[in-house]
Amino acid sequence: MLRVGLLTSGGDCQALNATMRGIVKTLTNCSPKPVEFYGFEDGYQGLIYSRFRVMTSADFSGILTRGGTILGTSRTPFKQLDTPEADGVEKVPAMVHTYHKLKLDCLFMLGGNGSTKTANRLRQEGLNVIALPKTIDNDTWGTDMTFGFTSAVEVATKCIDDIHTTASSHGRVFVIEIMGHKVGWIPLYAGVAGGADIILIPEIPYDLKAVERSIEQRIENGGRFAIVVVAEGAISKEDAALSKKEYKKKLAARTSPSIAYDLAADIERVTGRETRVAIPGHTQRGGEPDAQDRVFATQCGVEAARGCLEGEFGFMVAQRNGKMCRTPLEEVAGKLKCVNPSSDLVREAKMLGIGFGDE
Amino acid sequence: MLRVGLLTSGGDCQALNATMRGIVKTLTNCSPKPVEFYGFEDGYQGLIYSRFRVMTSADFSGILTRGGTILGTSRTPFKQLDTPEADGVEKVPAMVHTYHKLKLDCLFMLGGNGSTKTANRLRQEGLNVIALPKTIDNDTWGTDMTFGFTSAVEVATKCIDDIHTTASSHGRVFVIEIMGHKVGWIPLYAGVAGGADIILIPEIPYDLKAVERSIEQRIENGGRFAIVVVAEGAISKEDAALSKKEYKKKLAARTSPSIAYDLAADIERVTGRETRVAIPGHTQRGGEPDAQDRVFATQCGVEAARGCLEGEFGFMVAQRNGKMCRTPLEEVAGKLKCVNPSSDLVREAKMLGIGFGDE
Amino acid sequence: MLRVGLLTSGGDCQALNATMRGIVKTLTNCSPKPVEFYGFEDGYQGLIYSRFRVMTSADFSGILTRGGTILGTSRTPFKQLDTPEADGVEKVPAMVHTYHKLKLDCLFMLGGNGSTKTANRLRQEGLNVIALPKTIDNDTWGTDMTFGFTSAVEVATKCIDDIHTTASSHGRVFVIEIMGHKVGWIPLYAGVAGGADIILIPEIPYDLKAVERSIEQRIENGGRFAIVVVAEGAISKEDAALSKKEYKKKLAARTSPSIAYDLAADIERVTGRETRVAIPGHTQRGGEPDAQDRVFATQCGVEAARGCLEGEFGFMVAQRNGKMCRTPLEEVAGKLKCVNPSSDLVREAKMLGIGFGDE
Amino acid sequence: MLRVGLLTSGGDCQALNATMRGIVKTLTNCSPKPVEFYGFEDGYQGLIYSRFRVMTSADFSGILTRGGTILGTSRTPFKQLDTPEADGVEKVPAMVHTYHKLKLDCLFMLGGNGSTKTANRLRQEGLNVIALPKTIDNDTWGTDMTFGFTSAVEVATKCIDDIHTTASSHGRVFVIEIMGHKVGWIPLYAGVAGGADIILIPEIPYDLKAVERSIEQRIENGGRFAIVVVAEGAISKEDAALSKKEYKKKLAARTSPSIAYDLAADIERVTGRETRVAIPGHTQRGGEPDAQDRVFATQCGVEAARGCLEGEFGFMVAQRNGKMCRTPLEEVAGKLKCVNPSSDLVREAKMLGIGFGDE
Repeated sequence: MLRVGLLTSGGDCQALNATMRGIVKTLTNCSPKPVEFYGFEDGYQGLIYSRFRVMTSADFSGILTRGGTILGTSRTPFKQLDTPEADGVEKVPAMVHTYHKLKLDCLFMLGGNGSTKTANRLRQEGLNVIALPKTIDNDTWGTDMTFGFTSAVEVATKCIDDIHTTASSHGRVFVIEIMGHKVGWIPLYAGVAGGADIILIPEIPYDLKAVERSIEQRIENGGRFAIVVVAEGAISKEDAALSKKEYKKKLAARTSPSIAYDLAADIERVTGRETRVAIPGHTQRGGEPDAQDRVFATQCGVEAARGCLEGEFGFMVAQRNGKMCRTPLEEVAGKLKCVNPSSDLVREAKMLGIGFGDE
Repeated sequence: MLRVGLLTSGGDCQALNATMRGIVKTLTNCSPKPVEFYGFEDGYQGLIYSRFRVMTSADFSGILTRGGTILGTSRTPFKQLDTPEADGVEKVPAMVHTYHKLKLDCLFMLGGNGSTKTANRLRQEGLNVIALPKTIDNDTWGTDMTFGFTSAVEVATKCIDDIHTTASSHGRVFVIEIMGHKVGWIPLYAGVAGGADIILIPEIPYDLKAVERSIEQRIENGGRFAIVVVAEGAISKEDAALSKKEYKKKLAARTSPSIAYDLAADIERVTGRETRVAIPGHTQRGGEPDAQDRVFATQCGVEAARGCLEGEFGFMVAQRNGKMCRTPLEEVAGKLKCVNPSSDLVREAKMLGIGFGDE
Repeated sequence: MLRVGLLTSGGDCQALNATMRGIVKTLTNCSPKPVEFYGFEDGYQGLIYSRFRVMTSADFSGILTRGGTILGTSRTPFKQLDTPEADGVEKVPAMVHTYHKLKLDCLFMLGGNGSTKTANRLRQEGLNVIALPKTIDNDTWGTDMTFGFTSAVEVATKCIDDIHTTASSHGRVFVIEIMGHKVGWIPLYAGVAGGADIILIPEIPYDLKAVERSIEQRIENGGRFAIVVVAEGAISKEDAALSKKEYKKKLAARTSPSIAYDLAADIERVTGRETRVAIPGHTQRGGEPDAQDRVFATQCGVEAARGCLEGEFGFMVAQRNGKMCRTPLEEVAGKLKCVNPSSDLVREAKMLGIGFGDE
Repeated sequence: MLRVGLLTSGGDCQALNATMRGIVKTLTNCSPKPVEFYGFEDGYQGLIYSRFRVMTSADFSGILTRGGTILGTSRTPFKQLDTPEADGVEKVPAMVHTYHKLKLDCLFMLGGNGSTKTANRLRQEGLNVIALPKTIDNDTWGTDMTFGFTSAVEVATKCIDDIHTTASSHGRVFVIEIMGHKVGWIPLYAGVAGGADIILIPEIPYDLKAVERSIEQRIENGGRFAIVVVAEGAISKEDAALSKKEYKKKLAARTSPSIAYDLAADIERVTGRETRVAIPGHTQRGGEPDAQDRVFATQCGVEAARGCLEGEFGFMVAQRNGKMCRTPLEEVAGKLKCVNPSSDLVREAKMLGIGFGDE
């Protein structure tokens, strides 16, 4: 008997279920031994509190297209990993205990950066862990691609498309806030795909004057409207010059719920043009995975299952140069994959005439 | 020679172009005389300032599926109709002048409530005006349906769908703000279509306690999450009891950009549950018209053209009990079609278990 | 205890699950007595062979957006209702037996024309039956609307949209076959919504010469391509003049799988223009219900449940002039609601310049 | 003055306009000299007959999302390149003449395999040609990706999704024919993304017995239905053993319009299960490009423009290992990029349990 656990951790995304289906179908199809599946509920919480469902391969059938996660998820910050739960339960020992109590041969963990750090910790505690790179943000170190990313880009792009018709009918400036607190992958891809005029991302601090110039130049060239895509975590040059502490303080003092409102007010003030806001928000992680995501998620699932069948653990499934591969967990944990401001796509976007607020 | 003008006024919506195509194709196909088309730019502004394009039927070809309006639009508040423009131009005389200067036989005006009032005024000035019921809000008096409505409902419903997967994965309450400042047609339809648990609309003032009870009851019945659909103009019973002036003052003092943020904070406070916000915003009036809208828009265009060919003017195209008909402009102007709190759909939604915050 | 059965019969469609959810949620929410649900598998087959699942309201949760039917379906031709099954089982007595054995208070039957005839037969046998008007074809007598219809129109319209880009790029004639063996509701609506140049439906026999003229006229007017929408059951004037027997014989001798191929060959022959075929086929009954369908399906479910709670049976839920109502089963059974060739929408489509092949 | 020509050749696809926009925006933005654009109509036909439009950068604005090609396209078989046109015009000299007459500095050619061969021929005649890898089929040698591919996969996958609901409701086998006459990239990706049970592609000849076994095994494992994805050019082992001539003869004798009908009849015969057909057909190359395609198309456009600005010609824009690059035209022309039957994705699909008919 092969006994495997599965859990989904952190913010949800579109292809979590597709990935689990890939793992389960491959194990069921290829394992010489019968397989028992333990689905932990609500991420690491389920592992800590031994909340799980004994599942069969049929439970993972028909979920390829379904968004979200049938197991539920939760955020368990790595920083508090050694802080006991409110009820006194010690997290790491509790997780190790659950793993051993169920005599698991392997734990599949679908999660992003923070969750992978926790997975690495469990590896250090001697558990057989295989991580799968889940996040719409595409910011996981050690892989070119994460599942969730292309679907999120599709949703964000559709939002930019829909705003185009109303922006052009009214001749307005629109500020569209796209997910990305620390990295700008979704805003960059969706901005290019959606035909944005300006894209502001955390990796390239912007100058409001440059944004103004880009808008005015577009109007001069005959444009009736302008589309500004801004990452949640975009930052002005001015703010980027602050100390981390000062910036946090400034953010905390902000009365508007997010950057788009402030930036729109700034743009309206400096350009005198009617400026509106659109925030697709959590829809970017909702709904069905697109076809690319489903293929990639399936490949991740197969590769993870292969590792388990071969008795190799302690890695994260990855894709590099179009090939599936395995990256050791200790190499991944704690690192962030950012947009390189001098990367090809940024350079190409600039040649196209897209402003990044840094000119 | 038949000389007709077209303009699109007020907030844009999805089937404006489809409607104009319907008018133009029908006139081109059925008029015994050749037809000349004058497309006024940016709504009534184009009529006031004589900004127009001489257009052919080919210019209206291939636009059936295109959102927005190829003519541009603007808002010209009826209240300021007799206030001169900033540059001293008298609006009404200027519009009458343009009409006569171009020797128009008819002006087709695609617009909502305010715009129809202005159209009625032009009728009183002796112009041959035919109005077409444009608005996503479906609040136009004298017609069961407006074009833009079903498309907006589709977009709003898709947003609720997408939020469902993330809400259920995380076990959260989500407040989704749907368009409707004065009326709740879109939130009502999208709320029912999207499987909302609670729907709050301007026509039914809500009690926060009742909202709380609905959420708790859902959780008790085994739900892991709750979806609250709130119209932009939803109002609490408490606020509904204020004088109009006091309420406006209260609104003006609000620091958050819209009701969803405040309601979410309220819900989080009274229920103790993690509550998030989603605001599809202007995407609700963007993108392509759905099939229903295109059929209806086309029917509106044909009916308007028929009126013109028959020499009947001064009406708004309407649909009542599934039949196209004509409603005199003077009957329409200045009235609002609201959701009746005791109407069938509200009653049915309540039987289904949807809360309206009034229980 | 209230004991109710549910079954879905005939060709599947998009809002079957949404409708059952409406019934179940309303009964659960409004019934003074606890409710037990019996879901019969694969339509009337489940009732005949007593194949059913005892279900709870939770089983009908989360299915609002899901296409198809969670109960499965099958076709049980009314004509063979009194012919025993292959294994000798007498259908009608078997169904009556199952109903009584389970002590059902009511049977909800979601089905189209044939299935409603069977439901009427069960009513005559003394069962409490409530029918709900399921069919993408919208051909059910006694109701203005059926669930499945607007969703099918959306799919068919999307197909016409997608073909437009390729047709225009290559300057081709495209024949798009849309579902409708006996009636032309979907081709008519999708044809108008999709901007078809020609629409051929069973109710209006066509003349190939007239089709040719329409195409040539469109090319003369500057069109580079033409879109011909043809119902599965469209018929030429020539064939319409045949006796039913002769026509059946002719159809049986046809070597191509469907009318689109033959019509395309005819058009290519008479016009000399490159002509291609597109057949969206079963996708028209697949995928998610659109928002309109979900609202209507939900209303049907509530109305059916209301009937049951009020102790009224033997009717089909219907909508007339925008109001939900109940039509006696004996009035519905065996009748077909066809497109009236002189109805408003056909007349409007003709004013727009759409050809129906009858000019 | 920089004078550039553009043409789109061969079967249309989704991101042709997006690619041209990328070329034009980059040249406009980055060229030190003013640029004049010559858009040739209907592919190489426009170059042969000097049919073109003088265009400005504004003509390429707002087309990012539009499917098809604003220039029109046609197929000009490479094999007949030296056969004069019906009117006696010599193709190659005519194209060279047009190029020189307009004093072009560069010709951008968006096309697939055959069109690239012609482009290479023009290069040999001394013209400055830059090719861009257009095709939904992804079969262009020298690049990992072609524009059109991911969008076509999305459409094909959506079709498989929609068929799933109806297949499962009725418990049927469905044969879905996906584009790919010579290569199986779209069926392979869409099959994996859509959760197909069996995928048959030209590169892996199938055995009907193996297909039957896969279906029966799925039913045994509890499946109610089966989805068979078949490429247009899929071939049985038996037929693959024929000489090319014999096979062509056999194909010519086929009475059904395409392989899906024959395969469905075969499957119904050997399994005794109700089997239906779905053919998304030309919709796979229609409609809007997806976000991935728009990004890639834009990158292709920028890279092509860069080549022109740097004075480098005679290459095809390509992507290898995620990097944009340039492949000499003589290396590309006349080669086909096929699915390797032992490639990763095929192997992964088999581990997942997908049958390819070769077991």
